[in-house]
Amino acid sequence: MVDEQRLPENNVQQIELLTGTEDSYGGVRIEIKNRMDSNVFGDVLRASISQWRQKGTKGVWIKLPIQHANLVEAAVKEGFWYHHAEPDYLMLVLWIPKTAHTLPANASHRVGIGAFVINSKREVLVVQENSGRFKGTGVWKLPTGVVNEGEDICTAAIREVEEETGIKTEFVEILAFRQSHKAFFTKSDLFFVCMLQPLSTEIQKQEEELEAAQWMAMEEYAAQPFVKKNPLFDSIANICLAKKDMKYTGFSPFSATSSSGKTNILYFNNQDLKQPLSSGKYKKTEPVQYKNNK
Amino acid sequence: MVDEQRLPENNVQQIELLTGTEDSYGGVRIEIKNRMDSNVFGDVLRASISQWRQKGTKGVWIKLPIQHANLVEAAVKEGFWYHHAEPDYLMLVLWIPKTAHTLPANASHRVGIGAFVINSKREVLVVQENSGRFKGTGVWKLPTGVVNEGEDICTAAIREVEEETGIKTEFVEILAFRQSHKAFFTKSDLFFVCMLQPLSTEIQKQEEELEAAQWMAMEEYAAQPFVKKNPLFDSIANICLAKKDMKYTGFSPFSATSSSGKTNILYFNNQDLKQPLSSGKYKKTEPVQYKNNK
Repeated sequence: MVDEQRLPENNVQQIELLTGTEDSYGGVRIEIKNRMDSNVFGDVLRASISQWRQKGTKGVWIKLPIQHANLVEAAVKEGFWYHHAEPDYLMLVLWIPKTAHTLPANASHRVGIGAFVINSKREVLVVQENSGRFKGTGVWKLPTGVVNEGEDICTAAIREVEEETGIKTEFVEILAFRQSHKAFFTKSDLFFVCMLQPLSTEIQKQEEELEAAQWMAMEEYAAQPFVKKNPLFDSIANICLAKKDMKYTGFSPFSATSSSGKTNILYFNNQDLKQPLSSGKYKKTEPVQYKNNK
Repeated sequence: MVDEQRLPENNVQQIELLTGTEDSYGGVRIEIKNRMDSNVFGDVLRASISQWRQKGTKGVWIKLPIQHANLVEAAVKEGFWYHHAEPDYLMLVLWIPKTAHTLPANASHRVGIGAFVINSKREVLVVQENSGRFKGTGVWKLPTGVVNEGEDICTAAIREVEEETGIKTEFVEILAFRQSHKAFFTKSDLFFVCMLQPLSTEIQKQEEELEAAQWMAMEEYAAQPFVKKNPLFDSIANICLAKKDMKYTGFSPFSATSSSGKTNILYFNNQDLKQPLSSGKYKKTEPVQYKNNK
């Protein structure tokens, strides 16, 4: 993405300038697509910064695919810093004005789910993990997992339960959620306790992650010494017990597709609305793909 | 963090190996603290990888401060890829076994809040923004903002309301939340609608971000054409109207400090529990610092 524009001041050593797309905040976004010598890149960057400064450009974003790792040092030398990285690229950023930058922060949270799956006998689906802090403790816990990038919380809960135990489920509600900090390097964690209704009964345990999986009387789960002693586990067990008796209202998911086609799910206490939603602009999510496709 | 260990096979060219701390997943974490020549680093890395392979090491994490950007290319040449980056460092990672890696994913979500602040006259605190998509539209909206890294959702809501409008508040409940995807590069967004009770009445508008701020009858807010036409805004307005009539139960925050001293807030429907929590292991959060400190 080096264009044919020339610096008029210099007819001997012609420097091509970087071009990108302008964003709606007075900034410019550049993606390096072709291999370049790092010295040449440094020269091009200096000339480009000079031009951006004249034009009043604010933030400059450079997306550098990992195959162009040879250019990282040159960008840092010109004052760029790291904004974020994904496995295949590094995003560098520079703020040209002399004011404090107003660049948006990087993603700050990981999202996880715990699944409360209760069958018609009022038994809860529980597992024993074969790694991590619960390994060898004999503690029976709710199936848990991480929400993938771009995945809905309700979809992740259904997926994790099926992956770990083979049980197919329908999403009902979010019963509670916890925010905790410094969960992973400097990042925070949001953990959603989800109630699901089973659509099948026979457990097929995932061999890699689980020591055991079974249906267990809810009271037996809640009475485990580890659960009783841990405020978080104890509170969640109390919430699940209230839900088991049908005396607890959580947040139900309703989806609307925005004009740009984005998935967009709103979770709220639908029972307390004057006119509870059953259809309309926001529709109750129907994860039917899980009922029919497998 | 290059130690004194030598490769015994080679007495002529002695290569020092990288050392770090072992993690609980069979991996090793290294932080580069001193400046190094990139060729030397490449040699050291190759020898170290060879030793890790012999020892059965799984994941290798290298934290590379931005002042050592000269070493990025050498690490990538040895097979490392980017895990994540923060402004001042890049985290590179390598999976040594021939199996698929089980390294944890990077943070996937940004978290935002919208504040529903309602006074004793049942008026809602609303603002008009002077930038972004609402600039010049005349739309009155709830104050919104981004939750900072390491910040509790309830603290962020109180902070944003005070920053934007000067109104001091007490946190009441989370009324609803929305998950949406591809909100920022590939990242997702979790947006929490928070109810707060005002502790002061006089608005002092933030000049930088806001065109205007005022108290407005809730029905007038909800009747705005933009709100009526947008399913998300309309649903949130309906939830807020239900809350205004005290007929809606959201999720209240309760905090417990874990043994490691971590902040840990659980949000749930406290009114529906058999024995609603008012104290005990999990305690109702009391953001008193905002009442007294300012």
